[in-house]
Amino acid sequence: MVQPPPALPGDAEAEIDTPALLLDLDAFEANLDTMARLLAGSNAKLRPHAKTHKSATVARMQIARGAVGQCVQKVGEAEALAWGGIGDILVSNEVVGTAKLRRLAALTKLATVAVCVDDAEQVWALEQAAEALGTRIETLVEIDVGMGRCGVAPGPPAVALAERIAHSRHLGFAGLQAYHGKAQHLRRAEERRAAVAAAAEATRRTVEQLAQRGLRCRIIGGAGTGTFEEEAASGVWTEIQAGSYAFMDADYARNLDAAGRPVSTFRHALFVLATVLSTPRPGVAVLDVGHKGVAVDRGPPLVWGMEDVRCVGCSDEHATLHFDPGARSFGIGETLRLVPGHCDPTVDRYDWYVGLRGGRVECVFPVDARGAMR
Amino acid sequence: MVQPPPALPGDAEAEIDTPALLLDLDAFEANLDTMARLLAGSNAKLRPHAKTHKSATVARMQIARGAVGQCVQKVGEAEALAWGGIGDILVSNEVVGTAKLRRLAALTKLATVAVCVDDAEQVWALEQAAEALGTRIETLVEIDVGMGRCGVAPGPPAVALAERIAHSRHLGFAGLQAYHGKAQHLRRAEERRAAVAAAAEATRRTVEQLAQRGLRCRIIGGAGTGTFEEEAASGVWTEIQAGSYAFMDADYARNLDAAGRPVSTFRHALFVLATVLSTPRPGVAVLDVGHKGVAVDRGPPLVWGMEDVRCVGCSDEHATLHFDPGARSFGIGETLRLVPGHCDPTVDRYDWYVGLRGGRVECVFPVDARGAMR
Repeated sequence: MVQPPPALPGDAEAEIDTPALLLDLDAFEANLDTMARLLAGSNAKLRPHAKTHKSATVARMQIARGAVGQCVQKVGEAEALAWGGIGDILVSNEVVGTAKLRRLAALTKLATVAVCVDDAEQVWALEQAAEALGTRIETLVEIDVGMGRCGVAPGPPAVALAERIAHSRHLGFAGLQAYHGKAQHLRRAEERRAAVAAAAEATRRTVEQLAQRGLRCRIIGGAGTGTFEEEAASGVWTEIQAGSYAFMDADYARNLDAAGRPVSTFRHALFVLATVLSTPRPGVAVLDVGHKGVAVDRGPPLVWGMEDVRCVGCSDEHATLHFDPGARSFGIGETLRLVPGHCDPTVDRYDWYVGLRGGRVECVFPVDARGAMR
Repeated sequence: MVQPPPALPGDAEAEIDTPALLLDLDAFEANLDTMARLLAGSNAKLRPHAKTHKSATVARMQIARGAVGQCVQKVGEAEALAWGGIGDILVSNEVVGTAKLRRLAALTKLATVAVCVDDAEQVWALEQAAEALGTRIETLVEIDVGMGRCGVAPGPPAVALAERIAHSRHLGFAGLQAYHGKAQHLRRAEERRAAVAAAAEATRRTVEQLAQRGLRCRIIGGAGTGTFEEEAASGVWTEIQAGSYAFMDADYARNLDAAGRPVSTFRHALFVLATVLSTPRPGVAVLDVGHKGVAVDRGPPLVWGMEDVRCVGCSDEHATLHFDPGARSFGIGETLRLVPGHCDPTVDRYDWYVGLRGGRVECVFPVDARGAMR
């Protein structure tokens, strides 16, 4: 069942029913503008990851600022975006299973759609799905450049797979998917730089070997919010797949720059609005949201604007805050903003964004691909 | 957006689209029967917690076996159950905010509804909401018996709050909420027993003090899957609020009995069905579900029936399995079952249950209160 929206345009922030997924529209738009500006001088285009925002509305705002399209991880996410009018979608992941491949092939009739493979048998499955629907699917080879998850090894294994794609009648070889997810969360700038340099070298070598076989990479995709400036500067990647930059979260805010200071390129724009449910003892407040509403896979949320207040634990429906009772108190019914530890899975818990500007709700729009795991 | 169902009745398990939330109906029904049998000899009635299952269908099956009603944590969960025909619902939590209290009061016209308070001002807010709708709300005092979350202290503070309820024209004092959540996950049986014994003593003392003021507790609620036999045997609690017993998860399976063996009262009945998406290296398989589809707040999932296979990590949309490549291999497209680390938040990620019996889908039914956080 879809939950009803928690607010109406015009409501004050304190009137929003909680828990709610808040978007500070000024900070959000500033983040979109910052990314467009930072990539303006490079050869790399932005293809933001919709696994973060799951919204055709957000996607359109990114595309209006120059993004070439969107990335997704799931066919269901691609469908939600295509149905919302997004015309160029890359599934930056493998798609396995007859039903999903049929849906993927069908989607090429609505939008430009590309997908990744890391296995020869799956090239065959993809070819069959495309042939059955009389369509053509653009296909990238995923190479493992340090993530240690999916992907074939760079170099000859990638070239062999690319040739197989190129020789498939209903597939087109579109390039390489080269995402180093682990590099995003290395805290020190020099660690991130070294990880991306190694990934760049492996990717560049693979591109050269492909070129020797006459295989051109139209797309070389990768990068994320933690490292995109490195990938863009390398000259290797043609598309930057950052997602979290639009919202930011507590985890990415722990990355440090070359001078050892927290990276401050993007602002916190995404929050979970919560209400104080109980003040059982001095120095303790309990909120009406737990990890069902704010993801804790990368640690507990931060309390926005209150560095002295610490979230000491989240259970399913409650978050417990500790603070110095001599310095502060909370009243039952008071609302406050949490900065999620991890934005992507937090967004996926909600049906609606509540867009705020100047303390008022400006818009309420759906998380179109909420729960689209298939 | 509600996701489409991942299967049709009659499908074989291998035909189910993944990730999917599977219910092994034989194991599930055996768990319901076991709980009914274990409580048959005690004075405590079962009021299962619907925060686990979020389904009116499951609730009806529990009530058919003798449960007196259901517990929930949120007004939205109570609504989903009432709309699904459940007639007796306890919100075992505080409800704060005008809009939520209005919905709660309205719900008393559809079902018998009770709620908890731990603050005098909230008694007044509840009274106003009940008066405005010309109804009466049954109200429990939550006492903190060791959980360290919401609740007033046992004894005089609880009595003072109960008197305030009893003197409110549109509220009825219904009893005590005395849940010791932390006790559920203490691994050793003697630790759990000691925690419940202390909670029982505090609760008994409060009940006696209430009786001295002429206040009778119709409901004394608490207990969970980890400790319910202790609470039932104590003679203090009248209602057992266990939820996970119906499904079981990897975390509860780590509790030990008095002999130091894993507690085996209930069977694993709930699974996430996943597909092998990639086999990038010998000894490694990557699945098509990550922590967006299987909660990791109590650790990674187990791979059902494969003790030699270890889930070494979940990212948003992937789980990575390690195993001895000399002993086993996986094929891309192969499906396997995961036992979630924590069942409650895992269920909340899905729109549909897929009920299986004898290797076939017997039924597909909705997670009615999916995302009902308000």
